[in-house]
Amino acid sequence: MSEIELGITADMHVHLRDGKMMELIAPTVREGGISVAYIMPNLVPPITTIDRVVEYKQQLENLSPKTTFLMSFYLSPELTPELINEAASKGAIQGVKCYPAGVTTNSAHGVDPNDFTKFYPVFEAMEKNNLVLNLHGEKPAKKDDEEINILNAEPLFLPILEKLHSDFPNLKIILEHCTSKQAVEMIEKLNSGYKPGDKVNVAGTITAHHLSLTIDNWAGNPINYCKPVAKFPQDKKYLIEAVTSGKPYFFFGSDSAPHPIEGKARHTGVCAGIYTQKYAISYLAEVFEKKDKLDQLKKFVSDFGLEFYDVDTSKLKNSDKCWLVKRKFNVPEIIGNKEITVVPFKAGDELDWQIEWR
Amino acid sequence: MSEIELGITADMHVHLRDGKMMELIAPTVREGGISVAYIMPNLVPPITTIDRVVEYKQQLENLSPKTTFLMSFYLSPELTPELINEAASKGAIQGVKCYPAGVTTNSAHGVDPNDFTKFYPVFEAMEKNNLVLNLHGEKPAKKDDEEINILNAEPLFLPILEKLHSDFPNLKIILEHCTSKQAVEMIEKLNSGYKPGDKVNVAGTITAHHLSLTIDNWAGNPINYCKPVAKFPQDKKYLIEAVTSGKPYFFFGSDSAPHPIEGKARHTGVCAGIYTQKYAISYLAEVFEKKDKLDQLKKFVSDFGLEFYDVDTSKLKNSDKCWLVKRKFNVPEIIGNKEITVVPFKAGDELDWQIEWR
Repeated sequence: MSEIELGITADMHVHLRDGKMMELIAPTVREGGISVAYIMPNLVPPITTIDRVVEYKQQLENLSPKTTFLMSFYLSPELTPELINEAASKGAIQGVKCYPAGVTTNSAHGVDPNDFTKFYPVFEAMEKNNLVLNLHGEKPAKKDDEEINILNAEPLFLPILEKLHSDFPNLKIILEHCTSKQAVEMIEKLNSGYKPGDKVNVAGTITAHHLSLTIDNWAGNPINYCKPVAKFPQDKKYLIEAVTSGKPYFFFGSDSAPHPIEGKARHTGVCAGIYTQKYAISYLAEVFEKKDKLDQLKKFVSDFGLEFYDVDTSKLKNSDKCWLVKRKFNVPEIIGNKEITVVPFKAGDELDWQIEWR
Repeated sequence: MSEIELGITADMHVHLRDGKMMELIAPTVREGGISVAYIMPNLVPPITTIDRVVEYKQQLENLSPKTTFLMSFYLSPELTPELINEAASKGAIQGVKCYPAGVTTNSAHGVDPNDFTKFYPVFEAMEKNNLVLNLHGEKPAKKDDEEINILNAEPLFLPILEKLHSDFPNLKIILEHCTSKQAVEMIEKLNSGYKPGDKVNVAGTITAHHLSLTIDNWAGNPINYCKPVAKFPQDKKYLIEAVTSGKPYFFFGSDSAPHPIEGKARHTGVCAGIYTQKYAISYLAEVFEKKDKLDQLKKFVSDFGLEFYDVDTSKLKNSDKCWLVKRKFNVPEIIGNKEITVVPFKAGDELDWQIEWR
């Protein structure tokens, strides 16, 4: 096959920032082959009001009119059940993102997942309104904490996910950017009773970059450094199995996270995040083709995400279909302009598949 | 105690480079509290001839006349038993450094430790001449090797060390910059028959920085990135136990490895190595004091290294003693000049102990 139709594609974890970076990056959602994008709220300050999320969405639509943006709030003590009800009834948000404090870029306002109970009234309102709870699944380490490190922080978070799903079996929960064997196994376990046709309530998203990176790739290469960090070859195998499995509780969330090159080329305090948006589908196609599973790509990148979020495809900004076309190209070393420069994932590498809208 | 005499101090693993970097760094050996320094041969090209090592030593002595420099060859096919005999008889070298190909800075000319037997004639000549074999103990990964990664490369190297010690029980071997529990345990195992007064033939050196770093400290901080990488809190505990144990088969080798800041502040391909030379003893004193083991510091940083290398202390360039004096200071953010800048380990941090020569 040299052409494959992927339908209405969706990326359920996208960072578009604000200001000059937003102006550069927002149009690249569509360029990368994505029709529907779920946008992260971790701006500075974080998005926690209806006015702000509506304004932000309008800015994004002005920059990329053919992209359908799904919006989110940032879980914080400012959120109330009343606010959730109002935001949902207005269609202002599709979910709420939870960042454990201090684990990644712009998570300083995050929460302590060891004490989720104070958010239970908010979660109840979300469950009632069919909103999605997006979890950055890493247990935050306290100062001088000997137990938690960047490699076990995700596995140590999984009991928190399990408890939450048990307490809110009808709340739609996503464990975002799964990076470990244990994370994949937990999502499998929580869906062990799944039968075709069932509604999925707890799912894992998986990025493009974690399908090709391991720890050796980010050690000494800040451009490949993100949170959660890429783990070991065995973990990568589990992730590839999951994305090509055709199981509806694994779907695409790129966690594409642009930083100015100055935030990466530092001798200390490097920004965490990998920018994949502009070639999102092309990166995925490489992995699926290598596994001889290109026939499963549409489910992972289109069907399952749209189903989970109950996206009404009659109300999209655009009904173009994304086509995958076999045509080699080289990822540029940088993208940007005079004001801002970003290094894309796999800069300089040759990729085999491009996208077209038809 | 606010003053402690450390005697004739020795750092048995020092990178001084050449050119402008050498001019900046060579004098900092003495500034850091070190009297005797064993110098690494991984220049470009590597040092493999008597003329070159003699010339290099002279350059270093010109820059730092009061420091005693012990010199080394770089293990490569160019070394012959005849060359080893001649270099030893002239006192040109005290040892030979073995770099597995491709594991760290300037190791492109390194060897394959899976096939050491071709160097056995060289090792025999070294054994006969009482020279030291210095091992960078990481198993090199082949392309697409799924088994070896930056965390297990050292543990996977240990059987190679064990075999080598078994084949050459009288060859003095050092496993340099031990970073893992397993490495400490292997050195203990190979010395399990040790009784006070015995000659030690296989030892581990330990750096200053591995006593305070773990994986979370170098992820996102290129300045703390070195090979072998710092491991987990449990490994660090084993290292601290080893250096404060008073066992003569653990002594100091800083692996101080300066890079221009441009080699650290990069978005990809960051140089591996941490520069500790200028405050070497001060970094160590912090760790020993915290363990309430300052009384063991002299053994680790002076006695055991000099004994292992059979250093004749009547033939040093200088007989000054290093004194540790309790007096706070701040590590500068950078050291250098208009031409070259290096960021020292713990830049900006306050340390408690300074050194004086008396």
